[in-house]
Amino acid sequence: MIDYIRDGAEIYRHSFATIRDEADLAILPDDIAGVAVRMIHSCGMVDLVDDLAYTLEVVEAGRAALEAGAPILCDANMIASGVTRKRLPANNEVLCTLSDERVPGLAERLGTTRSAAALELWRDRLPGSVVAIGNAPTALFRLLELLEEGVGAPAAIIGVPVGFVGAVESKELLIERAPAPYLVVRGRRGGSALAVGAVNAIASKEEV
Amino acid sequence: MIDYIRDGAEIYRHSFATIRDEADLAILPDDIAGVAVRMIHSCGMVDLVDDLAYTLEVVEAGRAALEAGAPILCDANMIASGVTRKRLPANNEVLCTLSDERVPGLAERLGTTRSAAALELWRDRLPGSVVAIGNAPTALFRLLELLEEGVGAPAAIIGVPVGFVGAVESKELLIERAPAPYLVVRGRRGGSALAVGAVNAIASKEEV
Repeated sequence: MIDYIRDGAEIYRHSFATIRDEADLAILPDDIAGVAVRMIHSCGMVDLVDDLAYTLEVVEAGRAALEAGAPILCDANMIASGVTRKRLPANNEVLCTLSDERVPGLAERLGTTRSAAALELWRDRLPGSVVAIGNAPTALFRLLELLEEGVGAPAAIIGVPVGFVGAVESKELLIERAPAPYLVVRGRRGGSALAVGAVNAIASKEEV
Repeated sequence: MIDYIRDGAEIYRHSFATIRDEADLAILPDDIAGVAVRMIHSCGMVDLVDDLAYTLEVVEAGRAALEAGAPILCDANMIASGVTRKRLPANNEVLCTLSDERVPGLAERLGTTRSAAALELWRDRLPGSVVAIGNAPTALFRLLELLEEGVGAPAAIIGVPVGFVGAVESKELLIERAPAPYLVVRGRRGGSALAVGAVNAIASKEEV
């Protein structure tokens, strides 16, 4: 037998204690710090704090929306798969439309990526929702376009698309336009795990 | 309309060209470099190369196994969700046993995490498989224990568990024992997206 910690709750406690010890959380409001801890936990990098940008009300607004039954709209199936259902306060719907059979046709007609085209199927659900974009910069760009067109704003936007083309720019545009409360990881870093960490933290105050 | 690149194939090409321009891939064998590109693409960090450790045959062995129909065994549902099915050469099974109804009871009986207990249900499938551990260090520790017990070795192990308790140690132990061809991201970094990037790269030589 190899010697390692096998108690899940103890692993969580150790992990969160290490993060709180090493990460520069003092610069963050308490509720944002709670979200940062789970995001750091999901990626192993305490310097993620340096790239966080947010509006002060994003956690409160997102949590209130979920408590009132709002859906969680995700740009990637991995995010929908990763959200911990037992943390959701109202058995909330977790929706990713990327695999909908209408999406390839929509993408062709609109001349865009499938990730962006999938947001056409969000229009009715967007107002008051919690949006989690953790993969495609084009999805975040398209979200900003839809809101500019007049589609009702979500309650909170987790904006953590990742990568080398459009990730930086889409997140900076979200910060600049701020059409709704948001939480962003500036720069190229991002991804489904960070989106899931943020959603799971906003969904419930419980750390473990 | 916001000005951004909407052509998915062009986004991939730009992204991969940027990664190949910025990342220090020259130190890697060609096939490992191909995997590194997709892993970097999934996390936005070109310095991931510095933490890669691998056996020279891991890509060839993993690809041959998949071409022969081997299953992909994952420690997290997010990984199973993220593997691109159309890249798989033999319509391979992608299996995560974490949500199996027997797992909570197994975890209690074995005194370990659910992530580690879920591997009890891999025993018959492990020999010759492709293993992708991208979440729980305890799953990687448990894998090493099973192999030490005499369970047949997988064809390739993607070992990228993430975090602050056991991630570093489990990956160093995998490198030390090397019970099968492996690819590891040393240190705390890891996660489902990196595991998916590696599996998708091993599954097919096609970059886009």
